[in-house]
Amino acid sequence: MDRLIQRFSRLPGIGRRSAERLAFYLLKQPPEEAEQLAAAIVDLKRGTHHCSICFNLTESDPCPICSDPQRDPTVILVVEQPSDLATFESTGMYRGAYHVLMGRLSPLDGVGPGELNIEALLRRVRDSAASPEHRIREVILGTHPTLEGDGTALYLTEQLAPLGVKVTRLARGLPVGSTLDMLSKAVLSDAIQGRQPVP
Amino acid sequence: MDRLIQRFSRLPGIGRRSAERLAFYLLKQPPEEAEQLAAAIVDLKRGTHHCSICFNLTESDPCPICSDPQRDPTVILVVEQPSDLATFESTGMYRGAYHVLMGRLSPLDGVGPGELNIEALLRRVRDSAASPEHRIREVILGTHPTLEGDGTALYLTEQLAPLGVKVTRLARGLPVGSTLDMLSKAVLSDAIQGRQPVP
Repeated sequence: MDRLIQRFSRLPGIGRRSAERLAFYLLKQPPEEAEQLAAAIVDLKRGTHHCSICFNLTESDPCPICSDPQRDPTVILVVEQPSDLATFESTGMYRGAYHVLMGRLSPLDGVGPGELNIEALLRRVRDSAASPEHRIREVILGTHPTLEGDGTALYLTEQLAPLGVKVTRLARGLPVGSTLDMLSKAVLSDAIQGRQPVP
Repeated sequence: MDRLIQRFSRLPGIGRRSAERLAFYLLKQPPEEAEQLAAAIVDLKRGTHHCSICFNLTESDPCPICSDPQRDPTVILVVEQPSDLATFESTGMYRGAYHVLMGRLSPLDGVGPGELNIEALLRRVRDSAASPEHRIREVILGTHPTLEGDGTALYLTEQLAPLGVKVTRLARGLPVGSTLDMLSKAVLSDAIQGRQPVP
């Protein structure tokens, strides 16, 4: 019991009290319930791999997005984590492919370009140039609008420049639906500097 | 006492309990303290007017911004309220002039174009055209990124179009410093659709 409580409390967002509650709940359930949870946890690790094309987490390879003929494989949205990919997918707005870096550059934490799936991205762009119809037309930098995310985007821009592919980044500015008094000076400055002609 | 508590609790963000606390606090202070507060409130209303050029709240006319020779009077940032003007000023990023609408279009609340300082804005742009050096070059729409703010911006765009002035709006997209999982689908969709080429 203690061992399970300890294990549960290592999970993000679960403190000692929640861990106890979970353990006691399982104790009250029929044995199959607990066994099925345990089996699902083991299966998760056994059945899930990284997609060999975009590095998304997937049970099949290539992942469902990379193998979907409805999606445009010539536009790539580069994201930091599989969870970011899921966030963009939830909008339903994007119909291209992805590339998951599995992190962001963070020199202080010892994360350099070699720790991320950057070389694979460059190779993907380079290799695609051989076939006119699959040639990657655009790489969208979808890293977080934070210091480290921006640093990663800058590094990618430099690496992608010699390949002649169009590089874009997500729009930066006022978040729709907010009121101006809720926003930081940095956001407002960005919005003033990046102002766009009204069509 | 009851009358003061009632008056205090009409102020924004002050409930019945806070109003009581304020009233009891004043009761304990020396009489001069309460008199000076009362005088400051009266002075506020007596001494503050709208600037005859930009409609900002000011004690002098024209307001300090409109009469500052360091500022560029040929660029106008249109805002909804004096508090928005203060928000933009606090960034220190903007060196042009302002125009305060004193609200936004809100048909459901009975606020139409006639209730806002829109005609004065159009006149300001039109009249400036007479003098080449003071000709207004750009109108930046700085309404809130909300439904009503966007509606107001759309109306202004239509009204300004025949005057031949350049109309821009604040950039819309990811707010700097946020992480992607904190953002709404609408913000992410905006950021994807409005993506910009990396220079």
